[in-house]
Amino acid sequence: MSKPLILVSNDDGITSRGIRVLVDLMSELGEVVVVAPDSPQSGMGHAITVGNTLRLDKTDIFGDVRAYKCSGTPADCVKLAKHHLLIDGRPDLVVSGINHGSNTSISVLYSGTMSAAIEGAMEGLPAIGYSLCDYSSDADFSHVGQYVQKIASEVLDRGLPTGVALNVNIPPKRNQAVNGIKVCRQAKAKWEEQFDVRRDPTGRKYFWMAGNFVNFDIGEDHDEWAIANNYVSVVPCQYDLTAYDAISVLNNQWEF
Amino acid sequence: MSKPLILVSNDDGITSRGIRVLVDLMSELGEVVVVAPDSPQSGMGHAITVGNTLRLDKTDIFGDVRAYKCSGTPADCVKLAKHHLLIDGRPDLVVSGINHGSNTSISVLYSGTMSAAIEGAMEGLPAIGYSLCDYSSDADFSHVGQYVQKIASEVLDRGLPTGVALNVNIPPKRNQAVNGIKVCRQAKAKWEEQFDVRRDPTGRKYFWMAGNFVNFDIGEDHDEWAIANNYVSVVPCQYDLTAYDAISVLNNQWEF
Repeated sequence: MSKPLILVSNDDGITSRGIRVLVDLMSELGEVVVVAPDSPQSGMGHAITVGNTLRLDKTDIFGDVRAYKCSGTPADCVKLAKHHLLIDGRPDLVVSGINHGSNTSISVLYSGTMSAAIEGAMEGLPAIGYSLCDYSSDADFSHVGQYVQKIASEVLDRGLPTGVALNVNIPPKRNQAVNGIKVCRQAKAKWEEQFDVRRDPTGRKYFWMAGNFVNFDIGEDHDEWAIANNYVSVVPCQYDLTAYDAISVLNNQWEF
Repeated sequence: MSKPLILVSNDDGITSRGIRVLVDLMSELGEVVVVAPDSPQSGMGHAITVGNTLRLDKTDIFGDVRAYKCSGTPADCVKLAKHHLLIDGRPDLVVSGINHGSNTSISVLYSGTMSAAIEGAMEGLPAIGYSLCDYSSDADFSHVGQYVQKIASEVLDRGLPTGVALNVNIPPKRNQAVNGIKVCRQAKAKWEEQFDVRRDPTGRKYFWMAGNFVNFDIGEDHDEWAIANNYVSVVPCQYDLTAYDAISVLNNQWEF
């Protein structure tokens, strides 16, 4: 059996530590092609490049692994890979990350890491986004390998339901070992933004967005619970945003 | 009863025709505050500004209507409005658009227009994104008024289910009148990208993303069907991306 073809992308940029860890782990499972942003794209959500051009250049920063840096967003990277670079060979798996920082709960919507995975699912490909719940650029990834590979292997072996990508979050390295893997739902939570107002050297106002993550979900079946309790969380995510329950509510209540 | 406070944003930028139409229509329903990008932000998805600063400046381009242009994304605009400008007065409604171009089906994921609305829903506010299925900058908006106001009035009167924003698409101006409003689901479709490869004046390659929208949904209860049949489509959208059916699939099939 030929080795599976695995497309690797991310949102922290092609020089981040997290993508290097992921490339090394995926190289043990299959043939890897990397297409990743040439600069950090955190918080890019599902942005794509419209009304502007894209660059795509080969790079040897991963040695023998075929790799390209792209001027666009994570979703652009997956589109270029699928519809330009790999036009004769469909990837068997799309993986994105490993993100430096949590993408649990509603952060999935802002996450460039997850947009690459969801773009993969939109293309009909099995896809996984990985995040380590540690924002530091020199985060300790030493405990992630077995979980990252285990989940990728399961997806390669069994596939995923149509239209679904996995949002995988891994607890930060702690003194105690990770307890295992939990399949769960997205926690109900929000960001309470605060804007730090400053003055530039000419006296003009500018803003820094800051904020606190507020978890108001009392359940124990969600990703925030899993991370807090030292489990790897796996949330199956869909790109059909339809709130099906609301269709009948609107049809019954509204007067058109 | 005091007039409702309506926050208006968009992704085509504060000088586009679509937002001017929306400001005029909403001014008949309530007190309007505009916070919109100072430049086009199409295709920005749910991007937010991370690791960079934001500008927010008052503008008088809407005459007496309180309005601000923002250097950030549509989602940034809603966050700045909610957590900085309107800190003492919660908007009763967030509206975004009117987008120049369709945001049906999976385009909802790439849409900056809808990200402003979904950000509103994430903040617990009733929210609507409006799009006219006509991409031209001088599109004919003469038929949209009654539908835009009708839907906004229903939402102001009745609210929306928690966590739901409406994705409203309006057919282009045709010879025949619009048939009415249909509440529907997001059509199953995809973009088949093609990349146009060109050379810059120095001989270096660059790419333009292009592509065809491919609708493979044979149902008659989705937004693409509604637009094709000259109805206004209303899709209730949620920001909980959890694919709940897939949780049990994974728990039953996977070996952890």
